[in-house]
Amino acid sequence: MSNSKQAKVGIIMGSKSDFDVMEAAATVLQDFGIAYEMSVVSAHRTPDGMMDYARSARATGFCVIIAGAGGAAHLPGMVASLSTLPVIGVPIKSANSIDGWDSVLSILQMPAGVPVATVALNGAKNAGILAAEIIGAFDAEVAEKLAHYKDALKAKVHAMKV
Amino acid sequence: MSNSKQAKVGIIMGSKSDFDVMEAAATVLQDFGIAYEMSVVSAHRTPDGMMDYARSARATGFCVIIAGAGGAAHLPGMVASLSTLPVIGVPIKSANSIDGWDSVLSILQMPAGVPVATVALNGAKNAGILAAEIIGAFDAEVAEKLAHYKDALKAKVHAMKV
Amino acid sequence: MSNSKQAKVGIIMGSKSDFDVMEAAATVLQDFGIAYEMSVVSAHRTPDGMMDYARSARATGFCVIIAGAGGAAHLPGMVASLSTLPVIGVPIKSANSIDGWDSVLSILQMPAGVPVATVALNGAKNAGILAAEIIGAFDAEVAEKLAHYKDALKAKVHAMKV
Amino acid sequence: MSNSKQAKVGIIMGSKSDFDVMEAAATVLQDFGIAYEMSVVSAHRTPDGMMDYARSARATGFCVIIAGAGGAAHLPGMVASLSTLPVIGVPIKSANSIDGWDSVLSILQMPAGVPVATVALNGAKNAGILAAEIIGAFDAEVAEKLAHYKDALKAKVHAMKV
Amino acid sequence: MSNSKQAKVGIIMGSKSDFDVMEAAATVLQDFGIAYEMSVVSAHRTPDGMMDYARSARATGFCVIIAGAGGAAHLPGMVASLSTLPVIGVPIKSANSIDGWDSVLSILQMPAGVPVATVALNGAKNAGILAAEIIGAFDAEVAEKLAHYKDALKAKVHAMKV
Amino acid sequence: MSNSKQAKVGIIMGSKSDFDVMEAAATVLQDFGIAYEMSVVSAHRTPDGMMDYARSARATGFCVIIAGAGGAAHLPGMVASLSTLPVIGVPIKSANSIDGWDSVLSILQMPAGVPVATVALNGAKNAGILAAEIIGAFDAEVAEKLAHYKDALKAKVHAMKV
Amino acid sequence: MSNSKQAKVGIIMGSKSDFDVMEAAATVLQDFGIAYEMSVVSAHRTPDGMMDYARSARATGFCVIIAGAGGAAHLPGMVASLSTLPVIGVPIKSANSIDGWDSVLSILQMPAGVPVATVALNGAKNAGILAAEIIGAFDAEVAEKLAHYKDALKAKVHAMKV
Amino acid sequence: MSNSKQAKVGIIMGSKSDFDVMEAAATVLQDFGIAYEMSVVSAHRTPDGMMDYARSARATGFCVIIAGAGGAAHLPGMVASLSTLPVIGVPIKSANSIDGWDSVLSILQMPAGVPVATVALNGAKNAGILAAEIIGAFDAEVAEKLAHYKDALKAKVHAMKV
Repeated sequence: MSNSKQAKVGIIMGSKSDFDVMEAAATVLQDFGIAYEMSVVSAHRTPDGMMDYARSARATGFCVIIAGAGGAAHLPGMVASLSTLPVIGVPIKSANSIDGWDSVLSILQMPAGVPVATVALNGAKNAGILAAEIIGAFDAEVAEKLAHYKDALKAKVHAMKV
Repeated sequence: MSNSKQAKVGIIMGSKSDFDVMEAAATVLQDFGIAYEMSVVSAHRTPDGMMDYARSARATGFCVIIAGAGGAAHLPGMVASLSTLPVIGVPIKSANSIDGWDSVLSILQMPAGVPVATVALNGAKNAGILAAEIIGAFDAEVAEKLAHYKDALKAKVHAMKV
Repeated sequence: MSNSKQAKVGIIMGSKSDFDVMEAAATVLQDFGIAYEMSVVSAHRTPDGMMDYARSARATGFCVIIAGAGGAAHLPGMVASLSTLPVIGVPIKSANSIDGWDSVLSILQMPAGVPVATVALNGAKNAGILAAEIIGAFDAEVAEKLAHYKDALKAKVHAMKV
Repeated sequence: MSNSKQAKVGIIMGSKSDFDVMEAAATVLQDFGIAYEMSVVSAHRTPDGMMDYARSARATGFCVIIAGAGGAAHLPGMVASLSTLPVIGVPIKSANSIDGWDSVLSILQMPAGVPVATVALNGAKNAGILAAEIIGAFDAEVAEKLAHYKDALKAKVHAMKV
Repeated sequence: MSNSKQAKVGIIMGSKSDFDVMEAAATVLQDFGIAYEMSVVSAHRTPDGMMDYARSARATGFCVIIAGAGGAAHLPGMVASLSTLPVIGVPIKSANSIDGWDSVLSILQMPAGVPVATVALNGAKNAGILAAEIIGAFDAEVAEKLAHYKDALKAKVHAMKV
Repeated sequence: MSNSKQAKVGIIMGSKSDFDVMEAAATVLQDFGIAYEMSVVSAHRTPDGMMDYARSARATGFCVIIAGAGGAAHLPGMVASLSTLPVIGVPIKSANSIDGWDSVLSILQMPAGVPVATVALNGAKNAGILAAEIIGAFDAEVAEKLAHYKDALKAKVHAMKV
Repeated sequence: MSNSKQAKVGIIMGSKSDFDVMEAAATVLQDFGIAYEMSVVSAHRTPDGMMDYARSARATGFCVIIAGAGGAAHLPGMVASLSTLPVIGVPIKSANSIDGWDSVLSILQMPAGVPVATVALNGAKNAGILAAEIIGAFDAEVAEKLAHYKDALKAKVHAMKV
Repeated sequence: MSNSKQAKVGIIMGSKSDFDVMEAAATVLQDFGIAYEMSVVSAHRTPDGMMDYARSARATGFCVIIAGAGGAAHLPGMVASLSTLPVIGVPIKSANSIDGWDSVLSILQMPAGVPVATVALNGAKNAGILAAEIIGAFDAEVAEKLAHYKDALKAKVHAMKV
């Protein structure tokens, strides 16, 4: 799934079952007018595919990679070890997860030298926004959209009455 | 502390006592030839200073903010709420921390709309590398340095004999 | 939502979705005849609104602020950093919370200098009672109501048969 | 140990071994010019003494009680069940504690009807400040001291250079 | 609820809502032909009642007390501090519990001098069996029933086919 | 190690390295004038010895067994499965333990039918007192000593000045 | 339940209620054409049966034992202490489990000298694959099937479209 | 480091700093007369080297791979995804680990299809014994040595006096 021929963000996930969570990253990028490409890439089941994906990511034209995975979640960290692009990791609370701790810790606690930009458990929406912020740091148009987005968040709260 | 007049990365911490951990971020940026500026900004003790810092960060010329804090660590998330720049959060295991869980969770688990790119506990070095990767996504020279850095990591492992 | 023109307790929450939990604080204050005012104030989405709220709280006539929030819950701590009034924090177990630990720790583990009076997870009712106890420490009428409340708790237990 | 004949704050702890942690509460109150009285009262070893203490606390002239305890820490909750005064609980990380979780959870997770205002692990200093805030909500002089205290915190941060 | 005039085991719980869990202790004692008496006694809502119960327990004729409670569960430990009888504590996973950790730790981690014989989360059945084992250590008839019970457990497993 | 020919309490531990913790149980029993016998019995290294020990415990004259073990601590539960005597389990925080959670949970969370009376982490002293309470439930002399012990605890607290 | 007269893998579980989880191990072995035998053996309820099972396992013709259990899960570790065969442990998240931590830790954290090859919570399928890998290390036919299995995993991922 | 030209067990670790823990695996294999080869292979720093190692492991003559790693420990799982040999994972408690939970969970909680035989935290000795058990399942000589090893464990316990 992709919304453009010239994608700037690569979104990957370990299994199709992660799509319900990861979809939110794509939706946000769509809203910010940022091209993305979404696919299933598994560290444990398609290691060669993962290596190719990660190593060619910069040449593909990506600026950022978003990788979501559950359980002993190695995809974000392995992709980060294979690419010099920033990698955003989304811990997913899968079935048989120990309350999500497994995916959080196996994405967050990367050794010195190989960072993963980890967001909250099931936080794919924030992964999309973070990707936009990274692009927006060098792209005035996206930066402006982010400023509007913050205004919209504010307006939404102001409208809340309890 | 800063290594240039035109800093690209702002490094902040809640207290001077966090310096021993946060210094590693500055060292890495120095090694990558990326200008930074490092200061103490406290969410809880200098909230106005924090707001000014975060709101003027883009105009200051920063592309990325690295924020480290311990315990109920609100600095990274509050700065992220006030700026459209990407914010990297470094959980710090401070004295009286409950094994670091408090800072990890209060930085990582941000609500939808306001991401913080969280790295490992005390992972300031990785925060610096992640900042370089973000800049390197749009700067070929930094990207090349990152590629060399990965090569150096590999060479260092190859040289290890057990 | 407020039960009086001259509110003594300010109840705030990060999102309207927290209302189902926070309502219990209002109900208890209503029962004790203590005026309150309840509104949505978000640390991350309306930081200026939060600062205004916290800084004017004493002038508004509040004696106590009750603040509820989930996930990386910064609202209670940030309000506490901005006001000299006692702030009661209610950790809320929101969706995608890691079993509530995130909100508990990001409210409880405040650094030295900026306390938050934390109650149990989802413990909004106890937040209301604690506010009444604070007021009752200086108001004989409220103190008497609290004594009656304790008697009622006792009577309720005595009536239980198993 | 007390700093006045007419103490406003009662500070208790389960054992003399808690003194090194709890002393910080007294020091803060001393700084704010608030009279306190400090003693050892054990829920498990002197239950009658604890009941007498809690039941007479209001008549003694206390406005607030600060109770610190470690492990299965029942003192703050039991005193809260016996008095209508606000009770501040300080979880203490004692020897053989399971990383402090035991005292945190047995003080924080009080049932509906009997709140304890819990502060951070070993957070006796914050307990003292919270007691001052409670008194300051009704005492302009203490409120002013609290405002100065916040200014001093700010000044201290501003003076930090890294 | 009691099954005899001359009860040997006192079963108490903090609230009637704990009955669904605690009932299993009574059922087991009934099966072993051991007289018990079951009632609601709350550490936090009926502290005097609890003290009377605990202090008169031996005179009442009890050999063992079984106490169940959830959240910040103080009942077993407080009763243990007030009686020289063995007290069996049953941690109950109540609503708003943090996964049961709160009741487990506030019952288990008693300070030196005041033990509580803690069983598994919601383990009221085992509390009943443990009470029978305590009585059976001095009563040949009960001991024989326990031996039969073990045989029945074994037979039940032998009958399982998968 | 034993203090009498006719021991009433059997104290076992998985390894000699547990002695420093378990010794406290023996000391307490000695103080209460209760005969005990202490030995090393390992569930994993001497399973036959463990079975013999547990199965003959009643015939040996024991009324209670105290079993301490660390890590994946199976000794208390296995002994409980093999004897109808009450078994007190002492979780020990051994080297390479995950903060003691492993021994606590593998002793506490026994399945329905096979209880272990679990005490606090490293709580061997309380194991000894609990054994005394079990014996004291049927032995007036020991009961009286326990009452004196409680008085001594109280006196010790009364003597504490802070 | 068994799929052959000459079983190579023994699958055991503490209770029939574990069958729904453990069945996946049998299914995998069936798919790999490896003979197995599945039965209920309880460490706590049929200790003699467990000892016989473990001690005769090698003579029975087993190369590997898979043992699943929940709560304070002693079956895998006890069987490992009684046999020189490799034992694979499957932690099961049973009712009243504390989020599965109890079974994970009481299977994983075995003392030096007595290993259990632990797989993920409820990971019976992986236990079956691991048994096949152990056999496949010495059996070319099974090794080939494992290689095909990996290919099938890859193909399945390649077929996923999001 | 290797003890033979024809190694049967490959021992790898993510960094030379893991050697102090992993050495125990080699020592045990040496004692059992099993040839091994030990080297540093990093999933994150030498991903190609890791892939080559894992893919050629069977051809190299290995029957089992032992992989140790700390933090977000991806080495054991990645190697398991690339080889059909059994892989034993050793979680290592590295500096800045969150009490070892990160390495335990990122090794243990592998997804269905790719098992890792996980041993205790820092349990390299048990990894060596497990490797011996796997080989001993098909090699009578090793099996006999394992039987003697169990006898020696027993004898060592029998010799302990407390």
